[in-house]
Parts: sequence; C-alpha cells; structure tokens
Amino acid sequence: MPAKKSLDHLDCVVAGTIDLVGDRWTLLIMRDVFFGVRRFDDFQNDLQISRNILSDRLQRLVENGILRTVPYQDNPPRHEYRLTDKGRDLLDVLLAVWRFGDKWEHSDTERVLIHEDCGAATHMVPACAECGGELTRHNLRVEPQLDVVIARRAAEAVR
Amino acid sequence: MPAKKSLDHLDCVVAGTIDLVGDRWTLLIMRDVFFGVRRFDDFQNDLQISRNILSDRLQRLVENGILRTVPYQDNPPRHEYRLTDKGRDLLDVLLAVWRFGDKWEHSDTERVLIHEDCGAATHMVPACAECGGELTRHNLRVEPQLDVVIARRAAEAVR
Repeated sequence: MPAKKSLDHLDCVVAGTIDLVGDRWTLLIMRDVFFGVRRFDDFQNDLQISRNILSDRLQRLVENGILRTVPYQDNPPRHEYRLTDKGRDLLDVLLAVWRFGDKWEHSDTERVLIHEDCGAATHMVPACAECGGELTRHNLRVEPQLDVVIARRAAEAVR
Repeated sequence: MPAKKSLDHLDCVVAGTIDLVGDRWTLLIMRDVFFGVRRFDDFQNDLQISRNILSDRLQRLVENGILRTVPYQDNPPRHEYRLTDKGRDLLDVLLAVWRFGDKWEHSDTERVLIHEDCGAATHMVPACAECGGELTRHNLRVEPQLDVVIARRAAEAVR
C-alpha cells in the first residue's frame, strides 16, 4: 500500500496522531468519555453505534493507551473504561475540533461549553505554553530541532 | 449504512468536523499549506502521495471551502491552492493534533514550533476565549444552549 509506506517515510507526528484519532467514532467515543460516560451500554445508548464497531473502537483505544479498563463487577465480570494520562491529553484535540465544528459546520449546536473559572460560555483559542499569548499563523514559524537532526544523522552514519 | 445514519441522528458538531479532517492525508496536506506549500507538484514532492489521492483530497478541500484555487499561469492553465477563512481556522486543530502527537507519538520530532512574539520553542495549550485562562477537564462543563433547544422544539411542534 503505497500511501501507508510514504507516510511511514514521512515519519511525522501529525500522521501518527491522525492514525489514532482520525476515525469518526473514536473522537465521538472520547467526547462521551470526557462527559463522564464509562460503560459499554451507556456509550451504545448515547451514540447509537453498532456493538461490533463500539467494541472494536474501545479495544483499539485501550491498545493505544488512551483508555484503561477497571472492573466494577465480579459476577458476571464487567469493566468500565477510564482515561489514561495520554487519553486526558486528547481533550485539547477535542476542544479544537469542537470549536472548528461549532463555528463552521453547524451554527445551531445545542451544547455550550462553560469555563467555570470565569463563568463564561466559551470556546478554546490556542495559547503559547510559554507566554500565554495567542498562537496564530502570523506569529509562528517552524524550525528544525538541530540536536535531533544531528543525532539522527550520526546514527545513520554508524549503520 | 447504519453507522452513518446514527451519526446524522446525533447531529453533533464534532462528527461534522471529523468527517472533514479525519482523513490522514487531509491534515497532512493542511500542514503543508500552513507551511507555505501551494502547488500540486510541491505537495506531491513533499508528501510522496499518489497523484490520484492528492488530486482527490485537494478537490474535497476545495469543495468543502477549506482551500480555494487561484490561477497563476495561463498557457497551459495552472492554479495553486490557498487557504480560505474556514481553512485558516483549521490551524487550531492542527496545533492540537501536533502537540498531542509530539508528546505521545514520537519524542524525537525534528521540527519545533517557535512563537515569534516571545521567541520560545512552544506548543499550544487550550485557553478560554473569554478570560485567557487554561481550559482543563476540571474547569469545564457542558450545558444545553436553551434558546437553541427551544427553537428546535418549536419548529418540530409546527410540523
């Protein structure tokens, strides 16, 4: 499959993440998780998703370290799904997707996001982790991370 | 196709956006666009993507109002691809995906993001559009947007 091969070649962080969250059901499941849903039947009821697909996507999320299973009943054995640290970090992606969709895909969304610290109905803006200022395409540039490039070339030279 | 049907039923902004950007090639193309790539052959060289797939994804991005075509040569006719306003707003999604992938998928990424306003190598954190504070899963809640709910129910009652 040439497309896959060339993505491997590209070895880009963006590609890796798209593999993980680029499935439409996966982000919907994650949205539910952030809203507090933890059990198979509750996902199924909320998303009206086929049990096969749901089971497959939950399993992939567990395999990828996004969710972990925690037993809540012994007989019969049952488990629920909870966020890992990695899973928690997907919130940023979900907030960005939500904002974009809210602005461009449907203007009549029925749910608003409340920031409890200030009490406002809000949406996310991307801020600089260092200074807190807004990140825009006019104040960003991309640079090679030289130590990483040098280390990779040194490793290639040894081969 | 039951999966599609139930997503329509869900009518969720997240689902709409995943349809748009959930394709692995689409976000990679968008990454290139934000880095200044505009022409078919340059996308093709950078991504090592098959011309058929590239042509299909670019056409979909144009149809979805993310990119627009601008002629740059008459004979033979040639056009390049530029961001629309909607396309510009995808930067937030890309920054969120990038941050997540950088942290969890590869620690050895070769490119760093520089915030020119403060000069730091940085990543995005989701900030409140109203107060600028960081959005976390501990200070967010979701509420129904009552006027929208009421308007929808009134419209349904008329049918």
